Amino acid sequence: MPTLRLALSQVNPTVGDLAGNADLVRRWTRRAADAGAQLVLFPEMMLTGYPVEDLVFRRSFVAASQAALHRLAADLAADGLGDLPVVVGYLDADGPPQISSAAEPGRGARNAAALLHRGAVVATYFKHHLPNYGVFDEDRYFVPGDTLTVVRVGGVDVALTVCEDLWQAGGPFAVARQAGVGLVVNINGSPYELNKDDIRLPLVRRRAAEAGATIAYVNMIGGQDELVFEGDSMIVAPDGTLLARAPQFVEHLLVHDVELPAAAAPLAVHGELADGMRLVRTPVEAALPPAGGPAAVGGIMEPVADEAEVWHALVLGLRDYVDKNRFPSVVLGLSGGIDSAVVAALAVDALGPDRVVGVSLPSQHSSEHSLADAEDLAKRTGLDYRVQPIQPMVDTYLANMSLSGVAVENLQARVRGVILMALSNQEGHLVLTTGNKSELAVGYSTLYGDSVGGFNPVKDVWKTLIWRLAKWRNADAARRGETPPIPESSIGKPPSAELSPGQLDSDTLPDYQVLDPILIGYVDGDLGRDGLVAAGHDPAVIDRVLRMVDTAEYKRRQSAPGTKISMKAFGRDRRLPITNRWREHG
Amino acid sequence: MPTLRLALSQVNPTVGDLAGNADLVRRWTRRAADAGAQLVLFPEMMLTGYPVEDLVFRRSFVAASQAALHRLAADLAADGLGDLPVVVGYLDADGPPQISSAAEPGRGARNAAALLHRGAVVATYFKHHLPNYGVFDEDRYFVPGDTLTVVRVGGVDVALTVCEDLWQAGGPFAVARQAGVGLVVNINGSPYELNKDDIRLPLVRRRAAEAGATIAYVNMIGGQDELVFEGDSMIVAPDGTLLARAPQFVEHLLVHDVELPAAAAPLAVHGELADGMRLVRTPVEAALPPAGGPAAVGGIMEPVADEAEVWHALVLGLRDYVDKNRFPSVVLGLSGGIDSAVVAALAVDALGPDRVVGVSLPSQHSSEHSLADAEDLAKRTGLDYRVQPIQPMVDTYLANMSLSGVAVENLQARVRGVILMALSNQEGHLVLTTGNKSELAVGYSTLYGDSVGGFNPVKDVWKTLIWRLAKWRNADAARRGETPPIPESSIGKPPSAELSPGQLDSDTLPDYQVLDPILIGYVDGDLGRDGLVAAGHDPAVIDRVLRMVDTAEYKRRQSAPGTKISMKAFGRDRRLPITNRWREHG
Repeated sequence: MPTLRLALSQVNPTVGDLAGNADLVRRWTRRAADAGAQLVLFPEMMLTGYPVEDLVFRRSFVAASQAALHRLAADLAADGLGDLPVVVGYLDADGPPQISSAAEPGRGARNAAALLHRGAVVATYFKHHLPNYGVFDEDRYFVPGDTLTVVRVGGVDVALTVCEDLWQAGGPFAVARQAGVGLVVNINGSPYELNKDDIRLPLVRRRAAEAGATIAYVNMIGGQDELVFEGDSMIVAPDGTLLARAPQFVEHLLVHDVELPAAAAPLAVHGELADGMRLVRTPVEAALPPAGGPAAVGGIMEPVADEAEVWHALVLGLRDYVDKNRFPSVVLGLSGGIDSAVVAALAVDALGPDRVVGVSLPSQHSSEHSLADAEDLAKRTGLDYRVQPIQPMVDTYLANMSLSGVAVENLQARVRGVILMALSNQEGHLVLTTGNKSELAVGYSTLYGDSVGGFNPVKDVWKTLIWRLAKWRNADAARRGETPPIPESSIGKPPSAELSPGQLDSDTLPDYQVLDPILIGYVDGDLGRDGLVAAGHDPAVIDRVLRMVDTAEYKRRQSAPGTKISMKAFGRDRRLPITNRWREHG
Repeated sequence: MPTLRLALSQVNPTVGDLAGNADLVRRWTRRAADAGAQLVLFPEMMLTGYPVEDLVFRRSFVAASQAALHRLAADLAADGLGDLPVVVGYLDADGPPQISSAAEPGRGARNAAALLHRGAVVATYFKHHLPNYGVFDEDRYFVPGDTLTVVRVGGVDVALTVCEDLWQAGGPFAVARQAGVGLVVNINGSPYELNKDDIRLPLVRRRAAEAGATIAYVNMIGGQDELVFEGDSMIVAPDGTLLARAPQFVEHLLVHDVELPAAAAPLAVHGELADGMRLVRTPVEAALPPAGGPAAVGGIMEPVADEAEVWHALVLGLRDYVDKNRFPSVVLGLSGGIDSAVVAALAVDALGPDRVVGVSLPSQHSSEHSLADAEDLAKRTGLDYRVQPIQPMVDTYLANMSLSGVAVENLQARVRGVILMALSNQEGHLVLTTGNKSELAVGYSTLYGDSVGGFNPVKDVWKTLIWRLAKWRNADAARRGETPPIPESSIGKPPSAELSPGQLDSDTLPDYQVLDPILIGYVDGDLGRDGLVAAGHDPAVIDRVLRMVDTAEYKRRQSAPGTKISMKAFGRDRRLPITNRWREHG
């Protein structure tokens, strides 16, 4: 059996940055060559970044992707890397891409993979299974491919596939078995989802069995608006053995020697191919660069625990949002409470303390521990700490208008929002919002008040998970002999908005230990009232909670983007009508 | 040839209000019966409202729609209307609807039409062509039907189809010809789009020719979040003759006698049916209620001119957003400029002057004409007018913080936002935003300042169209002998944000007569830089404008919903990545 040294390049592309992404391919191909690799793999839509959304409809963008692919092939050859076959994802189209319209929906664009070799594009493959659920809209953007591409590399038949091809049975992996290939390459832009790593490996195993071939699964890492890509690239043998696995959330070159069956004369395929597909074989027969040196072993990285996984995802999502949008720094309000403390700790982990400004914004209702806890957090993390009392501004509004009750409560939150935005305009920081998913779900926030900000790292984090994250982060610091960033007092005290005297969240909301399970069932699980009652929740509490969720839709529509850690986060992947009389609650 | 009296019920359902929508069907079926109708047609998804978006994934909602359909059939019979066949749209599913997930995309839901007769559901049809472009995501929500349903009503073979079935060639209309039907019913939830009425009639004519049958096209009216449905229901003969056409933007019962070919023994259909479809015939043979009285003539309503059409769409969209969300009233800031004047006039047309509060919010930079024009507008329209100077609040911030330049400009806009939201909290009004599409496109607005508000009626209206609308509305008032609502001075003066001394829009932006055509090409037309240069625009201006559009994405993501009048409005139907390095500009 031939041995092929594979290099899975788990890198971080940026949407739209064709030149920068091509440079990444060249630099990592150099690294792979230095490690003796004989086949180098890059993620889905590597050249364009992923997802490109409506950029697909821009003709100039598709043409630029096609041109960049050919330029990249030539540049790799000019770099002296032409002998090394490279698989790279890009955006292709059958002809001039159509503009989406009622008469003629946007058609002709392809989510494509190419094999580059000796300065040329020697083979292409178009993604067959297009995901159109959750955060995916690929039926909107792409035409499905109907042809499996098999290339012969170093005497091994290799099938090219893209992402969702792996998630659905039938199609490319079944055809790969019919074609008798030795290796299936699967390139991905597969977004992070809580616990997805636990289903990914069994899935790759199932497909390896279906194809009767080794699978090389390569995924990108990085943040793209609300999505985070986690990596978790791996190689799995036909019998399900995990041969190598890359770490999550960091760039990584996974180099591993894999024994693969030598391709015979092309297998004659009889009868119809699975899913009505066709098969194209492209020989790239040529002496590959010798692997050389000792055998390469990629190692097997164990997936991290839930809290660690979420923490790393949130840090990566925030860092890339800030850096890819070229913000120098961030600013956030520090209330002394748990949400802003966790966001501050995330921001310091993502950007370093020098790029994080925390502002305490006390009012007459702020307790002493609020200021003390904010100050303690600042000391622990080293962020740039300031105090800006809001009472003079609040008093001026009150002196000039007749306001009472909730209008006065919200006024305080809005004055804070104005101050943070003024600091943003004056000094260039991105404002971070700190509302957790439980608050967003029930609308327990002030529109244009505490909801002000350009990015919310904890938008998709339930309140009970916020506490778990805080405890995990502190324990992790202690384990490493570092200062735990989050004051214990912020973790332990009862949550309060402090907008009126002695106010507590529990005046308005059920206890979060009661609230979160109902919200998780309703929002993440799509359970109706009956399903929630059957799950054992108190019907009166259910009605109270569902009423709040249903009426808070308008606030969620106007809230900042934030990192998703579930497929059921609010935002593009969960679209409910605002004007809607469907009510689950009694 | 038999004559059938058709009643097309162009009504206004509300998403989620199953009981209210069923009541609408009963009341309008009564009206149709009183007019001697023999077949009554209601719009797509009549029982649930349209679009229901992710409510599709809620099992309890699908079950409620199915139950409501059967209850409606029984209720119509109990009303003494059982002999009258009624076609109504609803949400169906093959089995328990699936929750959308990676492993198993949400499947099994159907966009359905039913024929109700004698207390029973006697036939159903599932939409075959599912739109998945622009504002539509139906590949995400529904499984396509593969069977054309033909019912025999009063001796005429009638095919049931839904909306998009009409917009794509092949499929149901081709099968209808193969089946030899006399009438194709097409029920719609077809959103308003500028000039769509100009393409709808030719399209119905083409399909009538394709089917060789008369088409009864019925569309809903009303506002649903950002969408407006316009009606424009019509009946077209196989030779393309327009037999009857309902008005746009109002509820209407279009009753018309149509001569239709008598059904023979069912035509034997040889060979394969178009698009791989199947055919099911359901006889509803029974004596229909006699039409009685003189022949019914529905009349042909001429479509209105562009400006009138847009004005009516914006009024309807605003009124339904306010009323369906049960807001008692609206509040907006009146700057004396054209945008707020147009929004105020729209609001008064939609809700009456008693439900509209206009607030002048002068600063030290406000010119005298700003206050005078706002006051003049208030007098002309009769809205509730107030003056709330902002300088004391602005001065307090400035005394407590070190701010300069754009931070001070934005501060003023944000103080106005806080005041409007305080009035909203105190008195219950919905805040209206008044930023036009040109401003939103280039980001010429203050986030959490003038962008504050729950709904923006002119979100999808280019600045140059704002002026045209103002002139049209004033001229229309004059034509009817009424007071033109918008002060001529607001129309004629150069636009200014008045946030710094002597500031004009033209200090920052190209002239709107130059800006809008570039924006229309880039945003609505998906033209790239080269395409814009080829269209004759100045390359330097193009680069300047595209840079502004590309960097304003984050502001648009956080802006209020507003009525769409184009398929290319910002929002759900135009999704560009925020973190994106693709730049058209040089």
